Amino acid sequence: VSETTFQPQNPSFESMVKEAFDAQNAMAMIGASLASVTPGGVEIHLDMHDEVMSQYPGLLHGGVVGMLADSAMGFAALTLVPAGGAGVTVEYKINMLRPAAGQHFVARGRIVRSGQRVTVAQAEIYAHADEGDTQGKLVATSLGTFVPV
Amino acid sequence: VSETTFQPQNPSFESMVKEAFDAQNAMAMIGASLASVTPGGVEIHLDMHDEVMSQYPGLLHGGVVGMLADSAMGFAALTLVPAGGAGVTVEYKINMLRPAAGQHFVARGRIVRSGQRVTVAQAEIYAHADEGDTQGKLVATSLGTFVPV
Amino acid sequence: VSETTFQPQNPSFESMVKEAFDAQNAMAMIGASLASVTPGGVEIHLDMHDEVMSQYPGLLHGGVVGMLADSAMGFAALTLVPAGGAGVTVEYKINMLRPAAGQHFVARGRIVRSGQRVTVAQAEIYAHADEGDTQGKLVATSLGTFVPV
Amino acid sequence: VSETTFQPQNPSFESMVKEAFDAQNAMAMIGASLASVTPGGVEIHLDMHDEVMSQYPGLLHGGVVGMLADSAMGFAALTLVPAGGAGVTVEYKINMLRPAAGQHFVARGRIVRSGQRVTVAQAEIYAHADEGDTQGKLVATSLGTFVPV
Repeated sequence: VSETTFQPQNPSFESMVKEAFDAQNAMAMIGASLASVTPGGVEIHLDMHDEVMSQYPGLLHGGVVGMLADSAMGFAALTLVPAGGAGVTVEYKINMLRPAAGQHFVARGRIVRSGQRVTVAQAEIYAHADEGDTQGKLVATSLGTFVPV
Repeated sequence: VSETTFQPQNPSFESMVKEAFDAQNAMAMIGASLASVTPGGVEIHLDMHDEVMSQYPGLLHGGVVGMLADSAMGFAALTLVPAGGAGVTVEYKINMLRPAAGQHFVARGRIVRSGQRVTVAQAEIYAHADEGDTQGKLVATSLGTFVPV
Repeated sequence: VSETTFQPQNPSFESMVKEAFDAQNAMAMIGASLASVTPGGVEIHLDMHDEVMSQYPGLLHGGVVGMLADSAMGFAALTLVPAGGAGVTVEYKINMLRPAAGQHFVARGRIVRSGQRVTVAQAEIYAHADEGDTQGKLVATSLGTFVPV
Repeated sequence: VSETTFQPQNPSFESMVKEAFDAQNAMAMIGASLASVTPGGVEIHLDMHDEVMSQYPGLLHGGVVGMLADSAMGFAALTLVPAGGAGVTVEYKINMLRPAAGQHFVARGRIVRSGQRVTVAQAEIYAHADEGDTQGKLVATSLGTFVPV
């Protein structure tokens, strides 16, 4: 669904995204880390722990899945924003596809369309059963709209 | 948008919803509390604190806004589930309407349509500037789909 | 969900919306008519006929339900656009709540939030069994995002 | 985003989908045709003509873009339904990415997740400038939920 390549307007897009990520208390609160930043795409990782579980032991809370999706899309949008700018979440939709069971979660956000007025992004959340499960299972997919400010 | 009244199938729906809420570590993590439970509707409250802020001081993190919306809709759906049953989030969409600035946040979830196979709910998130601001400002609105299991 | 009142920026908003509606061949194709235009809201009517049915006799095609919702939201957004401007659909979500059975359909679009960069609207589609059914049944609800250009 | 392969439960899925498509007056009304049917995917084609234009000459009406997306996802879901069954649209979201300018439109629907209770599908709409434009431009992307009945 993605356009092939994106040209960042900010040469320091990588450090800008890292700084914005580090400034979010909420990402620290859930224990998420920023694993990769490329033009038009980011990857966020989260190891399972008690505080982010739903009422079903072993399952990641749906709200945390949503938070990962929103952040993965928002930071992907931020990679294409000019220096000094920022991105704002207008809206997103998320479909939960399977119970979010696993030890490790990976959220991949990428830009579908970067326009003048709005940017459209998508994110996929994968659950990995353990260290050896390199492929993971797709547990959620989302589609959202962002505006540069 | 709501149908006028709903008849709960579980006479103990209120305690069921409270127990489910209390069992969610993630709701405790963000500091949310369940303020009211009626047939087809719930209200969740959250006081602002450092850990749930976005990178912009004074603004609630968008992912936390989404978590409140998802939970308000999900618990509203749970009020109409038979005893012993549960509800699963299929999907939701959320629109962020204004910067989520405030000292106190209220998420109101209510059922739009309770069907045999699927339940549709909506939620509105209000930000209150301080104790005296009883009306608040609408900062987000969402629409979601849930299935009983 | 709506803000109480909106102040149109274009004093001729009503005729602007009517002209835009009349210029849409697709609205004529399905047989829809613009029944009311107020600041921040419109109502679109459609009488059932063979061509707009789904494969189930007596049911309005889901795609036509979506068309009514999209148009009701888009024209509601257009009521608040300055003279000479226009509105563009960024995205919308629609939930089908019941089979769209009826002789007459009413789509009500209204603005939830009119911002500088984006406008958020919602629409509800009602199916009326016959002339005497003044209340109708809610068959779909939608939430969408529009930008002025 | 798609799972690799799907196993249809109905050996005659292809003819079932074709019959359902042909029974939809609304698809005939807009002039759409079913170009391909595979397990978990369909392709719908539409040639531009006056009746499906928006008020902007040369642009496909957004409601028709939505109709194509809804139908492409719904018929993709139908390919995996058991014989005698049907699929119902629960909801979908669509993002309009570019003005829908072109002579020929292709809607590709495919299943993201086929579950017991719900099926999640996505669709992409491409606009082709003319016969020679084999690649086309992505003008809309959508994500929706369907239930078998």
